[in-house]
Amino acid sequence: MATSRASMWCRSAILAGLTCAGALGPAGGVMAQALKDVRTPDKPLVLRAQGSFFVGGEKAEQTQGELGDLGPGGHIAVNQMYVRYMVPQGGERNLPVVMVHGATLTGKSWETTPDGRMGWDEYFVRKGHPVYVPDQVGRGRSGFNQAVFNNVRAGSAPPSSLPRWLRFSDEGVWPNFRFGSAPGQPFPDSQFPLTAVDELSKQGVPDVSFGGLPAPNPTLKALADLAGQVNGAVVMGHSQSGVFPLQAALLNPTAMKGLVLVEPGSCPATFTDDQVKTLATVPILVVFGDHRDTPTGLPTLPTWQARYEMCQALIARVKSAGGQADMLAPPDRGIRGNSHMIMQDRNNLQIADLILKWMDERVGARKGSRK
Amino acid sequence: MATSRASMWCRSAILAGLTCAGALGPAGGVMAQALKDVRTPDKPLVLRAQGSFFVGGEKAEQTQGELGDLGPGGHIAVNQMYVRYMVPQGGERNLPVVMVHGATLTGKSWETTPDGRMGWDEYFVRKGHPVYVPDQVGRGRSGFNQAVFNNVRAGSAPPSSLPRWLRFSDEGVWPNFRFGSAPGQPFPDSQFPLTAVDELSKQGVPDVSFGGLPAPNPTLKALADLAGQVNGAVVMGHSQSGVFPLQAALLNPTAMKGLVLVEPGSCPATFTDDQVKTLATVPILVVFGDHRDTPTGLPTLPTWQARYEMCQALIARVKSAGGQADMLAPPDRGIRGNSHMIMQDRNNLQIADLILKWMDERVGARKGSRK
Repeated sequence: MATSRASMWCRSAILAGLTCAGALGPAGGVMAQALKDVRTPDKPLVLRAQGSFFVGGEKAEQTQGELGDLGPGGHIAVNQMYVRYMVPQGGERNLPVVMVHGATLTGKSWETTPDGRMGWDEYFVRKGHPVYVPDQVGRGRSGFNQAVFNNVRAGSAPPSSLPRWLRFSDEGVWPNFRFGSAPGQPFPDSQFPLTAVDELSKQGVPDVSFGGLPAPNPTLKALADLAGQVNGAVVMGHSQSGVFPLQAALLNPTAMKGLVLVEPGSCPATFTDDQVKTLATVPILVVFGDHRDTPTGLPTLPTWQARYEMCQALIARVKSAGGQADMLAPPDRGIRGNSHMIMQDRNNLQIADLILKWMDERVGARKGSRK
Repeated sequence: MATSRASMWCRSAILAGLTCAGALGPAGGVMAQALKDVRTPDKPLVLRAQGSFFVGGEKAEQTQGELGDLGPGGHIAVNQMYVRYMVPQGGERNLPVVMVHGATLTGKSWETTPDGRMGWDEYFVRKGHPVYVPDQVGRGRSGFNQAVFNNVRAGSAPPSSLPRWLRFSDEGVWPNFRFGSAPGQPFPDSQFPLTAVDELSKQGVPDVSFGGLPAPNPTLKALADLAGQVNGAVVMGHSQSGVFPLQAALLNPTAMKGLVLVEPGSCPATFTDDQVKTLATVPILVVFGDHRDTPTGLPTLPTWQARYEMCQALIARVKSAGGQADMLAPPDRGIRGNSHMIMQDRNNLQIADLILKWMDERVGARKGSRK
């Protein structure tokens, strides 16, 4: 059944001139271009401001060799966090939203979807919210500290001192991101735009954050500082960074107007009662899609259903401490087939509307107006 | 003289709560935040469309170890080029401009300046042009191929197989980017916003393109393809990528409506007469700032004055072949003190206006309307 649907889907993709996805695609071949698929909204986007800046960062002193052996040794900036922002005209006093991406990805996650539709970054702006999209420290335009790699190359440090770089294969993504039970075998109701799955593949970048960053991850303080700099924000994390809003809230709770955990990789049971008391001062929403019991292909990690249950347990603890915490699971509302990349799913704006409704009910639309 | 100005400037910076720049800054300390410095324009920005997509890319098959040893081996996308774009309302038929950044930098170069003013990306949009800002393959949101790093870590490849990662120290940047003759000693007429030089430092990312990318650099074909996908564009490069518009034009000359080489690292004398004949079919502008004879601190590389002279020689060859090629050197017009980071200088919009005037005179404002 799934196989026959998959081959139908692949045939359509080929007829449309698109690459058939993942393991079924032409390995080594040049992939389809994406600009032709980008769709333009009907109404213009009117911005009060847009641009980019950095949060945090510190200076490190490095040798000529550590810097790649061209110019003189000296100081560089490390551990800074790049942030791109858009502020809607008339929305400068509205509640800002910070959107942080997951593992092996960048802020691109929230921009134009793989099949060319509007991303959540623009949609939340069109709904009146200033939106801030960082690249996690160590990735994308935030950069990383290259010294150890050049030292190993020069023989002055052992190969064992190298951190690993993580990327997910297309084949691994299919079950882990819950597009289907196996590569090329989509769930019949899958909401992910699978004809464009190769465009998601292009969003992947090597991720050094599992062993190659200072502890604690500098992104956490940068998020806490960013929320403070914009005078309070809803902070939204995804997957690996799903837990980041909780951790940032513990660093700067008064700057957090709301925490949105989209398909979080973890809702730790290890928070102390005092920490839970702090989290109970901020409205929390957890979002999980469908097909959560799919085996992920990553046997050392819990299934998404197990993570969902961890989050339900945390929600219960926060509520017991007097807080407001909610689970948004679209299947409970009859909305089926949402994947781990729910912000890119075909019904991504429907899910965004549910989050916006929660923000309206639990947080309020304007800065400092928490209900 | 320069020293006394520098210490005055540093005292002002400290009084203003800013970090004093480069080698004079507090090494290891946390640096000043930047959001507070971001300035908002008077008039809203009205966009027909904005978003991001990828150009190019191919599939590579990698082992579990090459992927960082979490999920299964399989295929990933490599050598794709991330592009962010903005199209002004009413400007969708106007001439698109592609802006490519230089070494150890990302597309951030063209966005909000280090001291919070409008970048050329937004300024060209406000002047009616669709603007496309890529991250070069191997950097930023375009990612890089991590396999060799994980192989060396695992002991299955020798350290000598590692490519180097290049970054420039703050100390090296001062003379090489021509902020002053030495770190902390600005030229009296420097146009670079030196109170925010630490924010430029944060724009730096490790650069693997000197030995760590396939040859030819995949960014060249991606630029040629991007210009074709938007039905013709002015392609602008900077520093390391100053030569890229020329190289992309040789791959796809009919897609190039104009080539703008901003402080190019090279204007090769090695182009054949046939190649120069092709380049002569496209209007070319070369832009160089002031203080070009400053020793760069990179004795293996030519001074900026030597590069300026190489470009004058190429301009002469293109003209001899019947082409249109111009040098824009602001000092020739009495505009003094422009640095290598001319798109971020305090008079960056004045320089942009000169480029826009050239585009108007030599290329025409609309797609396909070359005069």
